[in-house]
Amino acid sequence: MAPLRSWFSIPRGSHFSLANIPFGVISTASSATPRVAVAIGEHALDLEIFAANNGFSALSTIQPHQAVFSQPSLNAFAALGRPLHSIVRKYIQSVFAVDTPYPDVLQTNSALQKQALLPLKEVQCHLPFKIGDYTDFFVGLHHAYSCGVMFRGEANALNPNYKHLPVGYHGRASSIVVSGTPIRRPNGQFLDNPTAEKKVPIFSPVKKLDYELELAAFVCKANKQGEPVSIREAEDSLFGIVMMNDWSARDVQSWEYVPLGPFNAKNFGTSVSPWVVLMEALEPFRATGIENDQDVLPYLKEEHEETVYDIKLQVDLKSGSGNSSTVAASNGRYLLWSFPQMVAHHTSTGCNLQPGDLLGSGTISGTGSSERGCLLEQTENGKKPVKIAGGEERTFLQDGDEVTFTGVCGSDEEALVGFGQCTGRIEPALQLSF
Amino acid sequence: MAPLRSWFSIPRGSHFSLANIPFGVISTASSATPRVAVAIGEHALDLEIFAANNGFSALSTIQPHQAVFSQPSLNAFAALGRPLHSIVRKYIQSVFAVDTPYPDVLQTNSALQKQALLPLKEVQCHLPFKIGDYTDFFVGLHHAYSCGVMFRGEANALNPNYKHLPVGYHGRASSIVVSGTPIRRPNGQFLDNPTAEKKVPIFSPVKKLDYELELAAFVCKANKQGEPVSIREAEDSLFGIVMMNDWSARDVQSWEYVPLGPFNAKNFGTSVSPWVVLMEALEPFRATGIENDQDVLPYLKEEHEETVYDIKLQVDLKSGSGNSSTVAASNGRYLLWSFPQMVAHHTSTGCNLQPGDLLGSGTISGTGSSERGCLLEQTENGKKPVKIAGGEERTFLQDGDEVTFTGVCGSDEEALVGFGQCTGRIEPALQLSF
Repeated sequence: MAPLRSWFSIPRGSHFSLANIPFGVISTASSATPRVAVAIGEHALDLEIFAANNGFSALSTIQPHQAVFSQPSLNAFAALGRPLHSIVRKYIQSVFAVDTPYPDVLQTNSALQKQALLPLKEVQCHLPFKIGDYTDFFVGLHHAYSCGVMFRGEANALNPNYKHLPVGYHGRASSIVVSGTPIRRPNGQFLDNPTAEKKVPIFSPVKKLDYELELAAFVCKANKQGEPVSIREAEDSLFGIVMMNDWSARDVQSWEYVPLGPFNAKNFGTSVSPWVVLMEALEPFRATGIENDQDVLPYLKEEHEETVYDIKLQVDLKSGSGNSSTVAASNGRYLLWSFPQMVAHHTSTGCNLQPGDLLGSGTISGTGSSERGCLLEQTENGKKPVKIAGGEERTFLQDGDEVTFTGVCGSDEEALVGFGQCTGRIEPALQLSF
Repeated sequence: MAPLRSWFSIPRGSHFSLANIPFGVISTASSATPRVAVAIGEHALDLEIFAANNGFSALSTIQPHQAVFSQPSLNAFAALGRPLHSIVRKYIQSVFAVDTPYPDVLQTNSALQKQALLPLKEVQCHLPFKIGDYTDFFVGLHHAYSCGVMFRGEANALNPNYKHLPVGYHGRASSIVVSGTPIRRPNGQFLDNPTAEKKVPIFSPVKKLDYELELAAFVCKANKQGEPVSIREAEDSLFGIVMMNDWSARDVQSWEYVPLGPFNAKNFGTSVSPWVVLMEALEPFRATGIENDQDVLPYLKEEHEETVYDIKLQVDLKSGSGNSSTVAASNGRYLLWSFPQMVAHHTSTGCNLQPGDLLGSGTISGTGSSERGCLLEQTENGKKPVKIAGGEERTFLQDGDEVTFTGVCGSDEEALVGFGQCTGRIEPALQLSF
């Protein structure tokens, strides 16, 4: 399919081609109130201003709902449902198309262009949703397997439930932040010498701070408590996808997580990329996930095979002294369970999802040595340091390190559907006294 | 101390004596918009109407904030902070005191009495807070020990971390409901024959549905992300306490919970009592918790010994055929860690709490055979049925069963500080087809 061409300048290689149209929440120095926007090339189209200046005059279905673009989150827009997301996305594509049927709306309206098209480098991005509940799954099989081998050996690497259900747990919603927010190294309780017979924990700045490369889906549709979402309808519950860094303190995690799971090891901060790529924009990149060799129960069985997406993922680490290296590459295909399967399982008990809820995939790793989605896995729990530029190496993250995830679909430089970046820099821990 | 006496009729034995003044959110048939109220004897005092009719005219500190009483949740009132909660509680006590210095406000104002004092049986109670994040701890040591013995034997009953930190996990906030809301038996994935060598799960209505007797505290104070709350200041983060029933599907739980903790086993519904008892009202009932024989790290060390509360707890079970029995008694003292310790641990990494967050204690059991806070423990995972009236017995809950928790502090029938009831009735599962 030939790429959509625009009268507007969109650089080759931009993640935000006309094929994408991802949604986010922005503010600017001159207008500090957060509102809804889409990213196009190197600009954000401010949808509040666009709507206020008759940008949607040709779109009668959206007019009664225009107030959603003045909200400080995408929750209200998402709650309008996927048919309306599609209408808005396609309309914006058509407004920007080289042969737009609506030239008056923007192409020949230089006043509105100046007002509504803001250079991305001048806008501040905010957390795109007000997140009610955040659930993190663990469906990156290669990651689960590698970590299982490390801690339990090959024979018991995967727990017996792993291939029967998308294993997940409730995460902390309040500490989810948008890409770019600094992450302070937490203090925590852990065993400084885990192999010692006497288990005497210390409380100190954590020593095994790690990133986790994940994708995460925002929910757009509420189901009533007590009423499961069937696997056939689960796709309708999904608004779009972001990259997510589930920062993890491995020393805290290994001490605390039996029997109730990770808690303080992950509750200090989780970063998400600011531009939410709609499910519809990902459609051309559907792919087959990791094959499940177990019988899947009917409530989790998808009708078709291409249930995940071919998203090229990359992890870059820049040290405090400025040395930057790509430390891993991975792919959104490396998942055993799909987001619709996560929705179907999550709600199978009647648990109610709400617009703005966030579902994480868990760490996404490939099978190769350069495809590990976290340092725990890549360095074998600190045993094999990873080399970065300038002769530096890392077992776990140091203060001043900046971790950046990049994700993109497609190879046509004029039609990429990308996620931009998800980045965060480690600040030194607070020195606490008691 | 002599009980506070009132000019208003408060029956002996009421949980809502003048010593209490718990806060909640109500609506009525004639006024369906939820708003803030306090419970007094057999009435709710509608604080929106009270405020609108100059009820707080003598209280200049509260006047700028009166809009909080028109909110559909206690979040805004709670966020005013504990000094203001205390001022409002004490003022309401003084308005109702037999020797009130403010007789014109209510005692001699029969019009306002008629408008603002609503019989409890005519009001509908709502979930008292909009809950952002919900965390459930596991600090009822006797419960943790009994369950540990059941699954791992006496020697390994408690995990090595148990006495060093308040073990907890993130729970599901969206499915927390107010007492009285029916609970639908969930469908779930579990092993019908867990001891079989081949682990083949089924998906069906759960067979081991259980209650969990807990206390839970609502947070009133936000801390910034990255900034821990010290143990000395942790008490200020707490608004008040309710009873909580953490409904649990034991068959789902045992299949799913390794390694990330309980998820679908508990996300279908959690019930809380509607009237939140302020921390200040509980002060006279401070008690010593379970002694910790381990050295506690300084960030968790409380200055005084009486860190929990002597709250008499009771569980009643009424079958669908109407046979009702008290099946357990327990006490709020049976905790190894206090709520301030939970706050200090939770935020020690810099995790940010927000007003409206809910912290559960975990199941509270004593050591006696009639002091088990859940059926799993009481029936030894279904092996020893508990007898109820009418010749009925239970291993786990049946459809139509109604579980009611009652909690109360004190013995002076004119000065009880009670929690009322937390109740829920089991509805049959949906029959799902695929």
